[in-house]
Amino acid sequence: LTDQDVCDRLKNTNVRWRLPAVCFVWQLSMIILFGVFVRYNEESDTHWVDYRKGNNITSDIENDFYFRYPSFQDVHVMIFVGFGFLMTFLKRYSFGAVGFNFLIAAFGIQWALLMQGWFHSLDYTDGKIKIGVENLINADFCVAGCLIAYGAVLGKVSPVQLLVMTLFGITLFAVEEYIILNVLHAKDAGGSMVIHTFGAYYGLSISWVLYRPNLDKSKHLNGSVYHSDVFAMIGTLFLWMFWPSFNSAIADHGDGQHRAAINTYLALASTVLTTVAISSLFEKTGKLDMVHIQNSTLAGGVAVGTAAEFMLSPYGSLIVGFFCGIISTMGYIHFSPFLEEKLKIQDTCGIHNLHAMPGVIGGIVGAIAATAATNTVYGDLGLENTFDFTGPFAKRVPTIQGGYQAAGLCVALCFAIGGGIFVGLVLKLPIWGDPADENCFDDEIYWEVRQFLLTFAGN
Amino acid sequence: LTDQDVCDRLKNTNVRWRLPAVCFVWQLSMIILFGVFVRYNEESDTHWVDYRKGNNITSDIENDFYFRYPSFQDVHVMIFVGFGFLMTFLKRYSFGAVGFNFLIAAFGIQWALLMQGWFHSLDYTDGKIKIGVENLINADFCVAGCLIAYGAVLGKVSPVQLLVMTLFGITLFAVEEYIILNVLHAKDAGGSMVIHTFGAYYGLSISWVLYRPNLDKSKHLNGSVYHSDVFAMIGTLFLWMFWPSFNSAIADHGDGQHRAAINTYLALASTVLTTVAISSLFEKTGKLDMVHIQNSTLAGGVAVGTAAEFMLSPYGSLIVGFFCGIISTMGYIHFSPFLEEKLKIQDTCGIHNLHAMPGVIGGIVGAIAATAATNTVYGDLGLENTFDFTGPFAKRVPTIQGGYQAAGLCVALCFAIGGGIFVGLVLKLPIWGDPADENCFDDEIYWEVRQFLLTFAGN
Amino acid sequence: LTDQDVCDRLKNTNVRWRLPAVCFVWQLSMIILFGVFVRYNEESDTHWVDYRKGNNITSDIENDFYFRYPSFQDVHVMIFVGFGFLMTFLKRYSFGAVGFNFLIAAFGIQWALLMQGWFHSLDYTDGKIKIGVENLINADFCVAGCLIAYGAVLGKVSPVQLLVMTLFGITLFAVEEYIILNVLHAKDAGGSMVIHTFGAYYGLSISWVLYRPNLDKSKHLNGSVYHSDVFAMIGTLFLWMFWPSFNSAIADHGDGQHRAAINTYLALASTVLTTVAISSLFEKTGKLDMVHIQNSTLAGGVAVGTAAEFMLSPYGSLIVGFFCGIISTMGYIHFSPFLEEKLKIQDTCGIHNLHAMPGVIGGIVGAIAATAATNTVYGDLGLENTFDFTGPFAKRVPTIQGGYQAAGLCVALCFAIGGGIFVGLVLKLPIWGDPADENCFDDEIYWEVRQFLLTFAGN
Repeated sequence: LTDQDVCDRLKNTNVRWRLPAVCFVWQLSMIILFGVFVRYNEESDTHWVDYRKGNNITSDIENDFYFRYPSFQDVHVMIFVGFGFLMTFLKRYSFGAVGFNFLIAAFGIQWALLMQGWFHSLDYTDGKIKIGVENLINADFCVAGCLIAYGAVLGKVSPVQLLVMTLFGITLFAVEEYIILNVLHAKDAGGSMVIHTFGAYYGLSISWVLYRPNLDKSKHLNGSVYHSDVFAMIGTLFLWMFWPSFNSAIADHGDGQHRAAINTYLALASTVLTTVAISSLFEKTGKLDMVHIQNSTLAGGVAVGTAAEFMLSPYGSLIVGFFCGIISTMGYIHFSPFLEEKLKIQDTCGIHNLHAMPGVIGGIVGAIAATAATNTVYGDLGLENTFDFTGPFAKRVPTIQGGYQAAGLCVALCFAIGGGIFVGLVLKLPIWGDPADENCFDDEIYWEVRQFLLTFAGN
Repeated sequence: LTDQDVCDRLKNTNVRWRLPAVCFVWQLSMIILFGVFVRYNEESDTHWVDYRKGNNITSDIENDFYFRYPSFQDVHVMIFVGFGFLMTFLKRYSFGAVGFNFLIAAFGIQWALLMQGWFHSLDYTDGKIKIGVENLINADFCVAGCLIAYGAVLGKVSPVQLLVMTLFGITLFAVEEYIILNVLHAKDAGGSMVIHTFGAYYGLSISWVLYRPNLDKSKHLNGSVYHSDVFAMIGTLFLWMFWPSFNSAIADHGDGQHRAAINTYLALASTVLTTVAISSLFEKTGKLDMVHIQNSTLAGGVAVGTAAEFMLSPYGSLIVGFFCGIISTMGYIHFSPFLEEKLKIQDTCGIHNLHAMPGVIGGIVGAIAATAATNTVYGDLGLENTFDFTGPFAKRVPTIQGGYQAAGLCVALCFAIGGGIFVGLVLKLPIWGDPADENCFDDEIYWEVRQFLLTFAGN
Repeated sequence: LTDQDVCDRLKNTNVRWRLPAVCFVWQLSMIILFGVFVRYNEESDTHWVDYRKGNNITSDIENDFYFRYPSFQDVHVMIFVGFGFLMTFLKRYSFGAVGFNFLIAAFGIQWALLMQGWFHSLDYTDGKIKIGVENLINADFCVAGCLIAYGAVLGKVSPVQLLVMTLFGITLFAVEEYIILNVLHAKDAGGSMVIHTFGAYYGLSISWVLYRPNLDKSKHLNGSVYHSDVFAMIGTLFLWMFWPSFNSAIADHGDGQHRAAINTYLALASTVLTTVAISSLFEKTGKLDMVHIQNSTLAGGVAVGTAAEFMLSPYGSLIVGFFCGIISTMGYIHFSPFLEEKLKIQDTCGIHNLHAMPGVIGGIVGAIAATAATNTVYGDLGLENTFDFTGPFAKRVPTIQGGYQAAGLCVALCFAIGGGIFVGLVLKLPIWGDPADENCFDDEIYWEVRQFLLTFAGN
């Protein structure tokens, strides 16, 4: 009794003033910063009609909106329904999964527009960030990193902690992305390094710092029920189906987007079969485990991210997916217990298996594919276009590019682990309203829950 | 005992002959009217190949289909999954929510194609309505108004009443839309006035006329269970994610669609944070309420509808969203009880908070934004394009336009309230098979329900 | 006791070695075959930039990717979420529905890319299959046939059997498709014949061969619970909403895609009303049956498939939908019991009502519409474009085309029934791990199921 009392006093989950205060102040800051910095770019401004004439653009259809908007909407679905529902698998944390995912993504996209804008879309003539549809996609991408990290701490943190985690996550993301894409000039269309490797190790590092030795106290809630697993499949499938859009959304117009979609489609198909194979092989009587089907089937999409735009060739994509399905499912079976017991990393959704390992593989595949690129396969112009060997990088060759790709992977890892440890320490401060060990994975801490069961008189 | 007997006699919910008769006769009427009136337009007819040549259109990609089809499909998802699942939150009315939504939308889009066609797409050379993808979008929009109205009476009416409500609703919609968009030449890309204000006050007026003083008898069913709230989040998220498509679907090609999407994306992001803030602030211990998250997070999309295409600027959109999240959530907490107790308006889904107030705000924002439009900001051509200051309206200036925008809002309100009261009186006739007070919010009245609970021997 | 023991010995559902072996070996074969045969086509290859210049293509937007990718993604959603969730209606087989659907579709699209590639996309200069976005769509289409067939045997077969069924199904599909589309030169944009008629009769024939006289033993699981019916509506609605994309995805650029979308939109709207009418008419007290709403509302999309691209005219589409809603719902009420009792065909999802009958109707409507085509209605160029009366078919006239359309329907039926019986016999071999009669419709045979009910202490 006293033990729990002490705990309750230490762990005050009343976020009544803290959560509203953070939401209000941060949203007001966004408004002010947007007022100072953010404007429409030439394709979303009413001056587009003049711009068109000035640049001999014959038709409105050549507005970037029409190249990217369908992919943008698919990515948007992945962020809000995909990530949100994938995490609803816990029997009693579905509100928190889909609701907090919604909250932090809605804040994150605003902060990402600013952070990425300063690095990538700043118009030096007037000091304004000029935004269009590509910025919206990149903001969604940036948020994806933080939502991946959420998977590691799902059910163990308060919404205020999640917002803090997102604020720092987006900031770190924008810097590492700038270094990887602009300074190193590495390519990463689908973000295997920039998004997945970064997001996963960022979350795992935070979870390591926030290690809860007595998490077993809420063990009875750390699992699924039948229908929560079906809800999670909504998330899985929307992620799986729209991943070709994710990896092609900001690829080059024309063949770049086209090829990225094909590569991703194939890698994901291949992953499903090896996931099923391993899941069945390691369970008694060959039964399948929903955890694997929900997560590992997506590993191929992660791993083909960096090289999606490259001439990976269709069978190359299948090979990547083949191995990722195996590795990711083996991760759930063998590596996750090791991670928790030996390394003291509690990873609720198993993001190490879905994002971390496949992300690193994706970075390596990208480096190899870049190194192996030849004029014969790509064509002279094709090689130049695909790797943007123009301007200050006009003299770079594929073998050198491969080295920079590998360097990019290291940058992502450093930012993720260093940043994660720092943010983890910040989140350890006893002011954020996180739940006690016996209240983890329980919606009733942060949500009004009216009734759990669908029961009726006479039924 | 006798009381209930009397009630049951008065409230005969057997719709066996009435529902099939209405469906058959109305569908046959649609076939006949379509046979007389509706044909393909020049972009969906096999003569397109000749039209292209005649009009020097260089590529098939300039067919309006490619400008609008992706947005159309998103809007379609909002209508059927968005509205349908948003209303599944009731513990025992999910079939009625998603099923009747399906029925009335399927009827409504046909009747809307005719009604809107006569006003907007009539080819005077042959007296035929010529349809293309833009007509499909507009039909979906038109239906949205009726589905909003359904939210007010959810669980309290029969499917026959819903069909009658839709028939009149579409008719009224087409007339008020014609007056607002064509006669007054107001702009309303996302339909804050035409769709949301009209739909919401139409539904609220009907609900006022159909007031049930003894609705408390089915109070135990007027609430959610855990998983029905998760189902509702599917609706919420698809509405939220695809709202940029909704507001940009019929905007001008090029920058118009592009800007409308950006403005909506931002307004909605902002709304989420203030919704969470207010929800947490007004609940004991700062818990969040799913009702607010499911509904108020969408208010920004409603309120930015009219001005979506304007140079609202990114921070302007954030401001609109900021206030709408606050007002809408406050509405659920404070205004809904007042509405029910004092004004005798029973509003099952709280459409007053989600559509009515934000819709009116949207109309006002649109009027202000139009009034404030300048050549400096828009450019000469941009101003002309955005407000269509051409033909008979070539001499109109922004300040005048602002006045007409405000007039448009008044027209929407008048049609909604006047029409709603009239339709409410029609629906009061005791011939439509509506449920008794103790049977409201219960699927078993109109649906074969086999089994509620997932129970098994030994489990 | 001994009876069940014998049964359990006969019916060993341990798929531990068989399922992984099939998945691994088949996936490896895919990799090898893709390595030998599959390459990017000119629009997804880095040489696109050269191809553009060589062919005077002015803009990247004319890459086929931009014409078809939005439709492709919609089709992709139909395959994985649409078919997957439509089948989750069983109270205890939702994992199998959505999970096995996922597995066989992921394998099927790979095998389809090869099979269809050999027939349609083989570059004879280098012996390679060249793939682009249209191939991805066609692979999804091909898989749709097998998923339809899955509906007939849902809950009664093992995942290994499903994979075998898919392997043969795709193979047969590719051949019948080649004969119908290329040899007979019949048109079938939405696949009423090629996909639906074939898939449905293929599945029904298999189910006929696999007839289980004692299926009543698992009767208690062959039904829905409240929330599983709501899950199924997710599938229904995504199929319904995206069907216009399905029927237009591989139609001609420009007016072809545009018209196919309009026709499908209208046919489906009409079907909803007659489905509701018949469902209400034949139930006691006029209640609606979720089975009908989930399935028969889609019949119009099936039946308008072949003629979607033709000048069916809007009212023609409504008429097709009108009758299909009636026939399909009547099928569920009257024909399904007859099929099971008299013809010994157990059809879990009622695919005979949703795909078989509407598919045949679609083939007939297509034949009639082709026969009735005139230069007056289509225009000279329009007629040539729509029916591809070019090359070796330059002299074909509409009346002859109508005959070939009808011949195509017969080919689909022959391949389906012949192939289905053969595959059924293969699946009867006692080596595939199918469930005993008393274990049908039960996820616990092939899935780790942790907990069924959402129960909590004190709740």
